[in-house]
Amino acid sequence: MRRTRLTPEREAELFDAVLALLREVGYDALTMDAVAARTRSSKATLYRQWKGKPELVATALRRKKPVSLADIDTGSVRGDLHAMLCNADEAEMERDAALMRGLGSAIHANPDLHRALRELLIEPEAAALDAMIRRGVDRGELAPGNPALGYVAHMMIGAFIARPLIEDRPVSPDYLARYVDAVVLPALGLADR
Amino acid sequence: MRRTRLTPEREAELFDAVLALLREVGYDALTMDAVAARTRSSKATLYRQWKGKPELVATALRRKKPVSLADIDTGSVRGDLHAMLCNADEAEMERDAALMRGLGSAIHANPDLHRALRELLIEPEAAALDAMIRRGVDRGELAPGNPALGYVAHMMIGAFIARPLIEDRPVSPDYLARYVDAVVLPALGLADR
Repeated sequence: MRRTRLTPEREAELFDAVLALLREVGYDALTMDAVAARTRSSKATLYRQWKGKPELVATALRRKKPVSLADIDTGSVRGDLHAMLCNADEAEMERDAALMRGLGSAIHANPDLHRALRELLIEPEAAALDAMIRRGVDRGELAPGNPALGYVAHMMIGAFIARPLIEDRPVSPDYLARYVDAVVLPALGLADR
Repeated sequence: MRRTRLTPEREAELFDAVLALLREVGYDALTMDAVAARTRSSKATLYRQWKGKPELVATALRRKKPVSLADIDTGSVRGDLHAMLCNADEAEMERDAALMRGLGSAIHANPDLHRALRELLIEPEAAALDAMIRRGVDRGELAPGNPALGYVAHMMIGAFIARPLIEDRPVSPDYLARYVDAVVLPALGLADR
């Protein structure tokens, strides 16, 4: 049994296997045994590197995200919001939407998963979004007292959920860009109409 | 076996039983047998009145909703949007949110349920929301070319989903009222800031 730290390549391979299994069988049916078998690792290695299944899944989701908000800083709020959307292609976005829907229901049945996702994925991304908004305030683009500043994530989540639910159409980068211009920027006081 | 049409009281009793079962066991485990047993009806009656389980569930959800958008017409867009939110108390809202989360995952596994909900619940409500927006345009409150007019449902769904997911807090009428004022009205060009 190897005791050394995993190489980045080995970690990436592991995370790919976790996400592939998540898509194939869903969170509830995913087992550490299956991850170990598919990646030819020992379960001891998996448990040593991550605390358990919720932490392994949350870390895999974070590390394999197509774009990390913390890496974006274009110099304008509009540029930052559009940069959030442009790095994924349409097929990838649809695949990820299906994955997130499956996780959405798993979250409610598994408080451990919700806790791990909150700690390892949601809170870091929310902090990066807050930093993006704070830069806009510091540059004088955004009014510091605007109550919409705290609701950017809420607006974006609505765009992701409502499109398939109401319109029966998949989320696409074009649609999200239109939504940002129609809804998010005007709510932030950045409309140019 | 009764062949007459159900009385409104009997229908209401049936819909209550369907929603109670939905909360207790979820959509997948809900059976027409259980509904029949709990309401002392025959399964034949249930299938005669509704086509099947998806239609019965969608109709029960629509008929037991705390507020129907089609009944709201206060004379202003702001008034209409706030009236949407005020008719439910907090405990009821939390209970309904849990119900909708459960249905959210059932939708993806059951295309029949998605079809029934779309036809019997989502499309009528979306049409009522469109009518509400159209009245605002006709009164001169809303600019007809504003691209946010088509996204009111998207914004509101975001408010419902993001609060428990990101903030780990339940949706409340106060929170929704703040969100409408901070996000929805400014996006519609109705901010008074």
